[in-house]
Order: sequence, then C-alpha cells, then structure tokens
Amino acid sequence: MGTDTALPRARIAQLAALRRLGQGTAHAMNNALTAALGETGFLLEDYKDDPEVSEACQAIQRALQRCASLSHALLTHSQPPGPAEAEVDLVRLVRDLEPWLDESIGSRRALSVEAPDDLVMVTGAPADLRLVLMVLVSFAAERGEDAEVAIRVEGGEPAVLAVDITARARAEEAVGWLGDPVSAPDPLDACSLGAARDIIAAMGGRWQVESDGPERWQVRAEMPTSS
Amino acid sequence: MGTDTALPRARIAQLAALRRLGQGTAHAMNNALTAALGETGFLLEDYKDDPEVSEACQAIQRALQRCASLSHALLTHSQPPGPAEAEVDLVRLVRDLEPWLDESIGSRRALSVEAPDDLVMVTGAPADLRLVLMVLVSFAAERGEDAEVAIRVEGGEPAVLAVDITARARAEEAVGWLGDPVSAPDPLDACSLGAARDIIAAMGGRWQVESDGPERWQVRAEMPTSS
Repeated sequence: MGTDTALPRARIAQLAALRRLGQGTAHAMNNALTAALGETGFLLEDYKDDPEVSEACQAIQRALQRCASLSHALLTHSQPPGPAEAEVDLVRLVRDLEPWLDESIGSRRALSVEAPDDLVMVTGAPADLRLVLMVLVSFAAERGEDAEVAIRVEGGEPAVLAVDITARARAEEAVGWLGDPVSAPDPLDACSLGAARDIIAAMGGRWQVESDGPERWQVRAEMPTSS
Repeated sequence: MGTDTALPRARIAQLAALRRLGQGTAHAMNNALTAALGETGFLLEDYKDDPEVSEACQAIQRALQRCASLSHALLTHSQPPGPAEAEVDLVRLVRDLEPWLDESIGSRRALSVEAPDDLVMVTGAPADLRLVLMVLVSFAAERGEDAEVAIRVEGGEPAVLAVDITARARAEEAVGWLGDPVSAPDPLDACSLGAARDIIAAMGGRWQVESDGPERWQVRAEMPTSS
C-alpha cells in the first residue's frame, strides 16, 4: 500500500497545498456568494413588481446558487477520508456524487448514471467508495475532451459498480493501465488507479477491465452484497 | 526525492482526484459567474438612473468579481508545475501570490508581506518557488485558527525568503518538523515540508528554522542572488 518512489515529493506537496488552499478558497467564495445572494434577494423583494428586475435577479440567483453548490461540493469532498466502515447504499452514493462530477468533468464530456430503484447495500468506507468513483471519472475525463462516462450500479450478488468509458484516443493503452496500474506512464495515475483497485480488493471484491471496442472500455468492480 | 512509503496511496489518489475535479469545478464556477456578471451588467446599464438598483448591482458585481478572481487563482495554481528554470523576481512572485493566499487561509488568520521596492532576482523554477510559499503558508495556517503569517523578502546576497509564523499551539513541535520534516507525524506534512526544503537546496540555498519564543517561529530560505 506504500507509494511508488517514482512519484516526486514536490508533486505530492503541490496536491496537498492545493487541497488546503482550495478548501480555503471555497470558503472565501461561499462568503462572497452569500453576500451576493443577500443583495439579490433584497433587490428582488423591493422590485417584485418590475418584471425586468425580477427576471434578471432570478437569473443571477440561479447562477449564484449553482456556484454555491459547486463550492459546497468541493468543500465536502476535500475532507480527508475517514476510515469508518459502514453499510453503504451504492445507489445513493453514486446519485449524491453525480451532480458534482457531471459539472466538474467539463461541459463537452457527458456523464450518465444508471441504477436500480432499490438499495444496493455493500460494506465499506463511503469515502473510499467515493474515491474510487472520483479516480475513475477523472481518469476517464482525461482520456479526451469529448469522453463519455456511464456509471452503472447493479444489485444482486455480487453488487456491481461499473464505469463505461467512451473516448476517441488510446483506448487500448488505457485498458492496460486500468488493469495493471503500475504500467501507467504517469506515476500519479499509477498511484490513483492502484489505490482504487486496492479499495475494491480490501472489500473482498473483484476489479475487472475489458474493452468493448477501440474507443470503449469498462471497469467493473464487483463487491459482496451486505447481508 | 522519492516518497515515503508511509504515505498511503489512497491519500495521494484523493489529492490527485481533487486537483482534477477542483479544476473542473473552478471552470464550471467561472461559467456561472460570467453569466451572473452579464445579467448584472445589463441590469446596471438599464437602471443606471435608479440609485437602489445601481448600488445593489455594484455590490453584486464586487462579490462576483471576488469569486471570479478566487476561482481564477485556484485554476492558475492547479496547473502541474512546469520545471522551467528562469530568472525570477522574488518580490513579484510573492506579491502575485499574496491575494489568493490571504483569502484562502481564512478570515481569522492574518497574512502580511514585507518586501523591498527593488527587484530581488534569483534563479529557479517559478512554480517551485510558489510551491515553497504555498506549503509554508498552508502549514502555518494549520497551526491555529488565529495564526499570523508574515512573509518577508530581503535583497542582497544571499536573497532571503522568510516566513514568520505566530500561532498559539505547539510551536516547539512545529519548529522541529520544519527543521527535520521526516519527524512530522503526518506523512503528508513530512512529504510537503521535505519537498519545500529540497527545492531550496536544489537552488543552492539554505533552509534555516528558528524560534523567537514559545509561539513564534521562522523559516528562512536563503538563496543565491542571480548575477
């Protein structure tokens, strides 16, 4: 579970400083957004009979609320993961993470989620499972500017968390790295994909990677269903 | 320059995913802020003779611009550092980073900068020098909710980048970690402080740590001035 010596300390140091300062940045933005939302609310109240002002204020509010929910998500997911194990509903976990992931991978990339209406319960640390998704989705997003990511949850035994990635470039290589993380040329990818695979293995699960064609591949994490 | 095996891959993976998704989040926020600024601009233009609307719009604009500059800073400093070495003016580098650092360490913490009016030129990678500052300031900010950080640049030979930290808690320990990073109990601190010290050493510089009292300590990075 240790790190590769190929990963320079400076790179980790930058990531660590960015997490801390990024959290501070998100807090400072929240304060500014709250101030702007307050002003907009007063203006809307005072001019509720003026359609031009009302419409403009509502559009401003929507944009501000979108910003606020983005910065809230960034703050929430910047917390160091707690190791606490729990009974986790995979469906809920994926649905909760979906809006932030969808906004954050860029507007040209597409993210979709397919999940049953029922609960799909597994035993694991929620923060770890979120990390697996964050690693796979950000890895997928880096495969191309028009990458498509389809997350699928399946109930039954085993429970399945599958991530289908469609991207123009280098599918074959990426399948290789997903299946054998140490082969990834970027030590940060090697480390991240390795960590994701470790998490599934520690849950007693299986990590499978396959390609459906030259531009399409799938990571399928099978996990024992909680009794 | 390799990493400590004590640093779990999952922690690095989380930081890496946060950098990528944080960049995406900052982009998405920028888009929303641009839309809100546009609406506010139109409203301000149409109601420029209405003092209430004008004042509210100006207050909203100020808050939005503050958000936009924060998200711009987050994006700028999320880029993986380029290794390019250059002649760097330490004063300019510190002054450029100051507003973002000041906003991002939290409103109860204080950041100040003291620097000469002249250029203080050193030879190094600007991204690496920014990283040293980011590491030290975020380390300082974690020492306490009312920590004070004073950055000082001195010209002459050697050039000096000093960071004075005043915080209530655990000064003695922190002096120890700053001077001997591997002794830090959090492997991420050990890695980050070690990376900062490596950067100064690679520039042919000296890294000194001293305590001015039980709640006050200083990191002093001395670097050869560029001829």
